[in-house]
Amino acid sequence: MTKDKILVSVTGWEPSVWLDQFRTLTDRETVTEPDGPNDPSIRFAVVWKQRPGVLSKLPNLRAIFSIGAGVDHIFKDSGVPNVPIVRVVADDLTMRMSEYVVWQVLDHFRQGRIYRDQQNRKIWREPYQPAASDLVIGIMGLGVLGTDAGLKLGTLGFKVIGWSRTEKKVDGIACYHGEEQLPSFVGACDMLVVLLPLTPATHGIINAKLLGHMKKSTPIGGSVLINAGRGLLQVEADILAALNSGSLMAASLDVFQTEPLPRDSALWNHPRVTVTPHAAATSDPARLAPIMVRQMDEYDAGLPLANLVDRDAGY
Amino acid sequence: MTKDKILVSVTGWEPSVWLDQFRTLTDRETVTEPDGPNDPSIRFAVVWKQRPGVLSKLPNLRAIFSIGAGVDHIFKDSGVPNVPIVRVVADDLTMRMSEYVVWQVLDHFRQGRIYRDQQNRKIWREPYQPAASDLVIGIMGLGVLGTDAGLKLGTLGFKVIGWSRTEKKVDGIACYHGEEQLPSFVGACDMLVVLLPLTPATHGIINAKLLGHMKKSTPIGGSVLINAGRGLLQVEADILAALNSGSLMAASLDVFQTEPLPRDSALWNHPRVTVTPHAAATSDPARLAPIMVRQMDEYDAGLPLANLVDRDAGY
Repeated sequence: MTKDKILVSVTGWEPSVWLDQFRTLTDRETVTEPDGPNDPSIRFAVVWKQRPGVLSKLPNLRAIFSIGAGVDHIFKDSGVPNVPIVRVVADDLTMRMSEYVVWQVLDHFRQGRIYRDQQNRKIWREPYQPAASDLVIGIMGLGVLGTDAGLKLGTLGFKVIGWSRTEKKVDGIACYHGEEQLPSFVGACDMLVVLLPLTPATHGIINAKLLGHMKKSTPIGGSVLINAGRGLLQVEADILAALNSGSLMAASLDVFQTEPLPRDSALWNHPRVTVTPHAAATSDPARLAPIMVRQMDEYDAGLPLANLVDRDAGY
Repeated sequence: MTKDKILVSVTGWEPSVWLDQFRTLTDRETVTEPDGPNDPSIRFAVVWKQRPGVLSKLPNLRAIFSIGAGVDHIFKDSGVPNVPIVRVVADDLTMRMSEYVVWQVLDHFRQGRIYRDQQNRKIWREPYQPAASDLVIGIMGLGVLGTDAGLKLGTLGFKVIGWSRTEKKVDGIACYHGEEQLPSFVGACDMLVVLLPLTPATHGIINAKLLGHMKKSTPIGGSVLINAGRGLLQVEADILAALNSGSLMAASLDVFQTEPLPRDSALWNHPRVTVTPHAAATSDPARLAPIMVRQMDEYDAGLPLANLVDRDAGY
């Protein structure tokens, strides 16, 4: 009988944290390299920016598991075989992303930057504070993450609208869709939260044209951009231009065209930009590995895989 | 027939913003001073730190309305007649307070201080981030505000416990009560959120003794105090001592023993203290005046007043 192995191919991660988890959770052998390019024992691959070509010839590979919600990192490798790709959907990841979004929305809405500056200068002054219901927050991307973040913002009293590539319906979120409705969606937002997947269709979507549709005046002064999706969704030169022209008041960016963000980027010290190091929703091996093992067990028991990636759409 | 007037006696507010609201909402005449100490035409008073004695002899005064959730400001005046006192309960105020609490909890939990410092120094580094479910947040004060904030924190995944003077039950919040259970409540918290009313029993309750019960080690390092209740609940010297000894990691304070916070207070520039100028939940005249007028109309139609203050308890 063929041995049954899990291949863990991750870059930018210390593989041992993942190996340790799988080794306590399953009897399948967990390895970081196949035993040659045609290793018949590899049935499942767990990947984050896998080594190019490592998956291409494995004859018994049954499924590829992404350890992050985004899967664009998988397709950078042209040698991805035609097996199901499973996106991780985990409450832990969803909670973390919504935390980040709610945190950043509230920090802009409740004028954290102004209050921190006032505290530094020992100024006791209360700027005008609108109510949450005065503000429209637009979520770009209505997958699991965008929907959860939108609903939590709704609980806090914000008006929430959403945009997705294809038509979606979410209770409590007025939904726009498709390229045609994008300008009117963006024009209706006071804050724009981007949680899109990175695909050929979304690459560079946050550009001068899109930012040009944002409101020049909002209940908190100007408009705000929050991107916790992928760095290549944005054109950083266009964001900086929009910030400097005033068409964008402020931004929170967790992701960047080049990561780590280069030291010479003007985003680092822009007074109205919050930079975080791609930390909005980090995959926790202890919480995600059990979900993947359960899916492997279910697959081996003849059940279908859930949360499959649509290769044509790229997410 | 006696004329029917509303007396607006507010200090620290520009009365005109309140007068303008009442004048558009009701036919009752709205004034800032009675026509002499025994003015029979005043039937309702709307107050914030009213001029001492102004209410004491009004023969037809039927009810006093506080424009803030706290009512301690009313009792600073020894001449408050024995008529019903109505606390304002308004979704707008509740939403604002919960926003502030969620904002500050998330800023501590998601390590905003560390990330802002790293950004200043162009450092791309992700500190260990626990999950919300790893953290216990304790709410002191389970009135309308504390309950709403607690439930919203629960939605974000935090474990929420609560403490109140008398026994309360809130779904989703493990409730402690009374002085005897206070040490075990405080000892169970990673973050402590204070939304208590100021009464003789709570004056100075956030002192060295209480802070001494807080955890020295938590999933985010140390323990955190957030006070958005009243400044006189806290002993600022004890908070500073706890911060400097490490028994408290950080604090967000919206209220202070003396307001505005004096320039020589060491809280202003303490590196682990967030100071906001009593701005957590500001009363918005446009949203609160209609609620008061509706209650006056209901009273005049023979209906009971809601949200009455218990004078013995002081809130």
